[in-house]
Formats: sequence, C-alpha cells, structure tokens
Amino acid sequence: MSGQKTRQWVLTNPPSGDPVLSGSNATFTLKDTSLPALTTDQVLVKTLYLSNDPAQRGWIDAAADPERLYTAPVEKGEVMRAFGVAEVVESKADNLKVGQLVLATTGWSEYAVFNAKECRPVQPDEKAGIRPTHFVGALGGPGLTAYYGLIDVVGAKAEDAVVVSGAAGATGSMVVQIAKHIVGCKRIIGIAGGEKKCRWVESLGADVCVDYKSPTFKEDLKKATEGFVEVYFDNVGGEILELMLQRLKRHGRIAACGAVSTYNNLQGAGIKNWFEIITNRLQVKGFIVTDAIEAGKAPSMIQKIVEKIKEGKIKIGEDSETVVPTKFEDIPKTWTMLFSGGNQGKLVTKLET
Amino acid sequence: MSGQKTRQWVLTNPPSGDPVLSGSNATFTLKDTSLPALTTDQVLVKTLYLSNDPAQRGWIDAAADPERLYTAPVEKGEVMRAFGVAEVVESKADNLKVGQLVLATTGWSEYAVFNAKECRPVQPDEKAGIRPTHFVGALGGPGLTAYYGLIDVVGAKAEDAVVVSGAAGATGSMVVQIAKHIVGCKRIIGIAGGEKKCRWVESLGADVCVDYKSPTFKEDLKKATEGFVEVYFDNVGGEILELMLQRLKRHGRIAACGAVSTYNNLQGAGIKNWFEIITNRLQVKGFIVTDAIEAGKAPSMIQKIVEKIKEGKIKIGEDSETVVPTKFEDIPKTWTMLFSGGNQGKLVTKLET
Repeated sequence: MSGQKTRQWVLTNPPSGDPVLSGSNATFTLKDTSLPALTTDQVLVKTLYLSNDPAQRGWIDAAADPERLYTAPVEKGEVMRAFGVAEVVESKADNLKVGQLVLATTGWSEYAVFNAKECRPVQPDEKAGIRPTHFVGALGGPGLTAYYGLIDVVGAKAEDAVVVSGAAGATGSMVVQIAKHIVGCKRIIGIAGGEKKCRWVESLGADVCVDYKSPTFKEDLKKATEGFVEVYFDNVGGEILELMLQRLKRHGRIAACGAVSTYNNLQGAGIKNWFEIITNRLQVKGFIVTDAIEAGKAPSMIQKIVEKIKEGKIKIGEDSETVVPTKFEDIPKTWTMLFSGGNQGKLVTKLET
Repeated sequence: MSGQKTRQWVLTNPPSGDPVLSGSNATFTLKDTSLPALTTDQVLVKTLYLSNDPAQRGWIDAAADPERLYTAPVEKGEVMRAFGVAEVVESKADNLKVGQLVLATTGWSEYAVFNAKECRPVQPDEKAGIRPTHFVGALGGPGLTAYYGLIDVVGAKAEDAVVVSGAAGATGSMVVQIAKHIVGCKRIIGIAGGEKKCRWVESLGADVCVDYKSPTFKEDLKKATEGFVEVYFDNVGGEILELMLQRLKRHGRIAACGAVSTYNNLQGAGIKNWFEIITNRLQVKGFIVTDAIEAGKAPSMIQKIVEKIKEGKIKIGEDSETVVPTKFEDIPKTWTMLFSGGNQGKLVTKLET
C-alpha cells in the first residue's frame, strides 16, 4: 500500500513573543505530505484528540537554548510536537489491532506512522466515566504533574495549608483534588480567573478560590491566606508568584511547576522580590513530570488517582475539560486559548473529520 | 555614679533607596544622651569595633513589613542596630570584669549598658592569629553563615563544583575556604569585583575567580563553569543570579544567602528568568544564620573553623578583613562601603578615640 496522504502543521517561525497565527511571519504553516508505507512492527494512526500543554510554548521559543531545555526543541520545518490520542487504522504490529486507541506523540498531523513501541494502548472505561480525553488530562501529564509536584516534590502533608494558582487549569484542578482527597491538606486555596471558574474550583474541594481578575484580588488573596500558608503550587509565575512570596510562612515551600503568565515573554517577565526567599527561608523546587515518568512512578500514581475517581471523590466530569471541536486548519488557534485563560480544566482539541 | 554620657546615631528617615548621609532627609542623625546608672548584673561597655553587615539595610527599609522581617525592624528614633566588640569599663556583674572584651548588640553608640547575659565574653588568641575583629568576621556571623549555608543548607559535597558570588566579602571568602578545606569540593569558582580581589580569592583556594567588573565577564563566567555546576552560593542576587540560573546543572542547588546588589532597591530589582528553575529542576533554599545559632549549632561550627585556622589552612590574616579607623561621626559613611564593594573580607569599623 502506498503512503497515506496527510496534512501537517510545521513550525516555520519560532516566536519570541506571542505566537503569530497568520501572515508571512506566521509561527506555523499548514503543509500536505505523504507518509511512508508501513514496515514490520509499525502502525498508521489517525489523530482524534490533541493535548494542549503550556510546555509546548517552551519547545518552540526563538531564544531556546537546546543545552538548557528539558527536551529537544522543535526545529524549524518540523511538525509541531504534541501528545495525542489516536486510533490505529492500519497495522503491521501484532499487539496493536485496527481500532485500538493509543496515546502517542502524534504532533499536529492528521495521520502518523509509528513503531509499535512508541504507542501506549489506552482503554476508556465508560462505566467509570473514563473517556479517551482523560489520557491526556486527569490520567495523563496534568494528573501526574499534580500528583508528583504536590506529594513527591513539595511533600504536602495534612498539616499544610496549600495555595494553587492556575487552579481551574488541567494541572491545577487536579492539584486541588489531590490535596483534598489524597493528602487531606488542612486548607486549600485556589487562584483562578473569573467568577465561574472560581466557584467550580471550590466545587472540587478548595476551601476558597480567589479571582485574580477581580479589582480586589490582592486583598482577597491576603484574606484567604491569613496567618500565611506552608505550600504554594505555582503554575503561573509572574505577578501572582511575587504576591505569593509574601504570603508564605517562614520555611514555606514552593513547587515551581509552570510560569504560563510569562511563556510568551520569557525574557521580559520575572520576580522583583527574590529577597522574600532569603528573609523567610523559603524553599523553591523546580520540577518536570518526565523525571517521575522515567523513574517508573506513573502507574502507581495513576492507580491512586483512579481509585479516588471510582470512589466518586476526584471528579473528571465534562466540566473538568474543555474539548474544542476544531477543524484541522484551526489547530493553532485552539492551542492559543491556553494563554488567554480560555479553558476550564484540560484544553483538548477534538479534530473534526 | 551618675549615667555615662554618650553619642549615638539614631534612625531618623528610613530609606527606600540609597541611604542618605547628610541634609534634612538624612537617614541617620547624631545625638547626645546620658545612659542610666547600672543596676545589679549590669555592665557599662565601650564600643571598640562595629560590625558592618548587609542585613542591616533590611532592618531600616522604609517599606519593611514587620510581619515579614526575620528580626524586628529598627524603629524611627531608635539607635541604629549593629553588632560590636566592646570592652567592659564598669561592672555590677560577677562574671564580667572591667577590661573583659565582649560581643554584643552595641548599636552605633560609644557606650552602652547591658544585662550581663546580653554580652558574650570573647578571648582573642594572638598566637593563633585570632584578633578581636574576628568575632564579627570569620568566627562570627559571616563565618557561621558560610558554614551553615554551604554545609547544612545546600549540602555541598566533595563531588560538587561550587560557585560563590561576593567571594571577596566577609561571608564569601569564608565560603571559598570552607568549600576548599572542610568540604573539599571538586571545583571552586569565585565571583568578585576587580583584579586584586579576584587574585586574593584564588589565593584562598578558589580554582578561579571571575571579575564581574570585566567587560568579558559573561564569557569568563561561562568558561569558568563549563559543563555547568552543582551548587551556587548566592550573596548578591540580581544580574549575577540571573546568569548563574543558566550555569547550574539539572537538579542544581542554590543557597540564597544575600542579595546585596538589590538591598538599596528592594522593589525595583529581581530576576527575569525564573523559568530556568523549572526547566532545570533547580532547588533554591533561602536561609538566615540566626536559625543555626538559635538551634545551638554555633559552637561546633566555630570549633571546626578554628581547627582549620590552627592547621594554617583557613586564612584570617589582615588581608581577610578591611578595618577602617573611623571617627564616631563617620560611622554611616564607613558602613556604606558595603554597598560600593569597598571592602575585601569583613568590613569592620574601628572607632577612633
């Protein structure tokens, strides 16, 4: 059989600021190509869902220093890298039948060819409410990031009060639920953008969620953290991080997970009050979930999350993800919703066919 | 006996930027006063040497939030706080004879009255080269800060390459020597200002010391840290910290000790590349030496440092301190040398009488 035709989004202009969606300076360009024919142990997959992750912005930054990235950058001319849930549509591999759903680094491509070992078979479970999209959300990178960061990295305990920023995001919403139902933290404070998201974060188990878009945000945060807190799980960096450096207790701990507020301006943003780290003896630990995955910790973490889902405690209902039906030509546009706070829970691109 | 007359420098205008030495807006004002007569268990001391410490700047900042300072701020109208080495000139305490040298929080005052328990008797040892000034230097706060930060806080080991900024300062010069002679770090890189200081830091045991005033500083630092380093002992914050965030190995550790480059501009300086902490999984630990002192760790630390002094390894000669003979009315002026990099090793004010 000859190679499958496919459309792909390739990186053409690595951005230094906001990604550019159109024009001669566009970050990505849509191309047509033909995939190679399958050889032994290979499969052809069709992409159904794409994972949208803030980390993708780092992989394509113009100023990215390959020596300092935690994973290789996407090179100019390469297909934009992304995790995806895909269906096997042709197989020369014994263990992967046509129709099997798999998790793979599909990239922004309609079809892709993989060696079988590059695909992880996944099994949705309707009865337990586990849908295909959960393998890039609650049971994928964001869920693992939340578990690893909160429990292993920053060592949250029942006696800790915890603040989580980006609390309505894919990772943050899992941090809130893991803090509540697995660790049992004494107090959980979310930070999110907008009234609706804040109330949703509270419905997940936060004692209170503070709206960073409110004109009274600073005072609200101060009130919510009265007496100061032990732990801050930081998904956003920038100004909210600065404020939180002033709201941590002496010897407080920070899990430095993300800095989405600065991803499109890596050189221009930062924190002004580093001094708080010294005077209050704060501990900051940066982390990347791939360390936990490479150490083989993922299965036991996922098991603990699944247990709490089955007990009805951790909620992964439809309001815990934003699934955006998207034409192939609109993939970049859906992705940029990440940076405008457009999603509640995990932002997933559902490819329209 | 009636109260001793004394001159004192009091805080009149808490600064938000550089301290002001004269005029109606002066940070400090010279005043005459009479001390109370001694009661039982008290001593009258005469200040001989004053310790100059970057931390003093934090105690008087206009924007200081008392809830967030590690020690109470100096209030407007209070004597400027400082550690000093003083001589007992009158005593109603059995354990402190006239002529005894003591370490106490004398403040910027010619004479002071203390309860006996507020004074720590100190004993210079000419044979071992231990002078009175060393009790505010190598065997005082700076020496303890270096030991505690490098060994307890950041856990430096023989297999670590260590970078120390402010390496020609009171703390930094001890970090270099403790890294060399107590820990035995595999490589020690200093950062200091000026050719002379750099060569001196190398004479203390640094494999290389890089001059931050050189036009080729960035490249020099990059070369000196080729292959990246495990540990950074930060005394300066600001731009050098930013550069070092890019020179640490994955999982590198930072002892956040000071930020002298930003002390006169606490609201305006900061770091732009927080993101490095995440992608390279860095650990940052802020610390204050008083924690170690309150935990009773000082005597054993001092003992280890004294051992190495007696073995002739740790050097505390006259080039390891800058003792500035100072008229009482010039105390603030000598103190500001801290922020202009005017000192090599510990900056000590020797009061002229």
